Amino acid sequence: MEQPEKDQFKDDLKDFFRTAQEVFMNGLSIDTVIFGFHDRKLKVLLVRLEESSFYSLPGGYIRKQEHVDDAALRILKERTGLKNIYLEQFYTAGDVSRADDINAKQIIQGIIGSGTTTWLDQRFISICYYALVDDTKVKPVLQPFFSEYRWVEVERMPKLLYDHRLIVEKALERLRMDLDRKLVVFNLMPDSFTMNELQKLYEAIYQKKMVRSNFQRKMLSLGILERLEKRYEGKSHKAPYLYRFIGYKH
Amino acid sequence: MEQPEKDQFKDDLKDFFRTAQEVFMNGLSIDTVIFGFHDRKLKVLLVRLEESSFYSLPGGYIRKQEHVDDAALRILKERTGLKNIYLEQFYTAGDVSRADDINAKQIIQGIIGSGTTTWLDQRFISICYYALVDDTKVKPVLQPFFSEYRWVEVERMPKLLYDHRLIVEKALERLRMDLDRKLVVFNLMPDSFTMNELQKLYEAIYQKKMVRSNFQRKMLSLGILERLEKRYEGKSHKAPYLYRFIGYKH
Repeated sequence: MEQPEKDQFKDDLKDFFRTAQEVFMNGLSIDTVIFGFHDRKLKVLLVRLEESSFYSLPGGYIRKQEHVDDAALRILKERTGLKNIYLEQFYTAGDVSRADDINAKQIIQGIIGSGTTTWLDQRFISICYYALVDDTKVKPVLQPFFSEYRWVEVERMPKLLYDHRLIVEKALERLRMDLDRKLVVFNLMPDSFTMNELQKLYEAIYQKKMVRSNFQRKMLSLGILERLEKRYEGKSHKAPYLYRFIGYKH
Repeated sequence: MEQPEKDQFKDDLKDFFRTAQEVFMNGLSIDTVIFGFHDRKLKVLLVRLEESSFYSLPGGYIRKQEHVDDAALRILKERTGLKNIYLEQFYTAGDVSRADDINAKQIIQGIIGSGTTTWLDQRFISICYYALVDDTKVKPVLQPFFSEYRWVEVERMPKLLYDHRLIVEKALERLRMDLDRKLVVFNLMPDSFTMNELQKLYEAIYQKKMVRSNFQRKMLSLGILERLEKRYEGKSHKAPYLYRFIGYKH
């Protein structure tokens, strides 16, 4: 980064800290766990903090006159460009020292100068939402303070800042609960897919292998899938059927 | 209430409002939905506000250096005298005007004088927990501002202050989810019980009638019940078996 740009960024960040207290609810943040499914793997969208090797969940703050759910939708739209996202509030993280991360502090002080107290030095309680998205439609928007977005496999997470690892675990727990009782997975799948692709998604969420025949029988018995034509690729006698979710045509 | 007592109460309340900002996290509260099961009905513990006919959920605030979960446990202990309560955080209520209840305002102004702005006039986001308790062990503790505790059947709720009706609905929704995947109901039952008593609890939570034979078959198939002796009352040929939850002996 060139020096003038860096100075600009430093000034922007200082401005943000100065006005934040007036604009946002104090002591409260929102964190989002954005799940996507590609290459037959369940992934989470992470952001890397400016001038560091540290990743965190995308998040933001609640305006003084804004419903918490609206704040979550706004933050997701700002970060991913997506509207009409499937979103569930699943947890509020309330440990006293959860935002007290020495690495995060050093990154901020490295930018604006050490020894400076900022708006971020107060205790933050974070209201957490998970989102299920079609990752091909996500266009992450870089913003000050974040230098890279990255889809990371749930099972290969790097070390995350703050208590974000715990928050991802809680999101997975809740996603499994929701999966048992309502049809949320269609948000993660393309319009049509094979039974094997659907099985891979369930295996990624539950983090266990399933038996192909049992899985197929169970899925078909739910009456939520419509069988379409076969997908012909390579040897035609092995072509699998395609399915789509009934009632969720685009 | 005699006049000196009333003056004392007014002073206490004013003191509370004066010190609250220093003691508690601002803009945040905790509300609890305490479920109990008696007379074969699912009930919720409500409090009536001083000098009014209005009920609300028992709640409180989070100390500046207190984990949110610890605050919930403390508040429950202060209100019910119970430790080691089964507690689940299930929802954070974030509507902008949720705490803007004209009835609540009038009650407070009736006590401390109208036109007075207090700590309660800010926006509050509420972190909500539900608890499952053996109601026979609850000894509600009256505190300033609350003049009566009452167990009210879920299906016969009076009008509640704030958004507490919505919070009860959300708690029921979550209780049903939790019931499907783990054994939480034992917290609501005495040490031993009949199959019919257990069925009544499930019917109260799901708010629907169930078929006796199906219910019994399903419950026994879960492998969580141990059959004890019969309960002899009246005609002995009708005596039902008693059961207890395996692994939850006292």
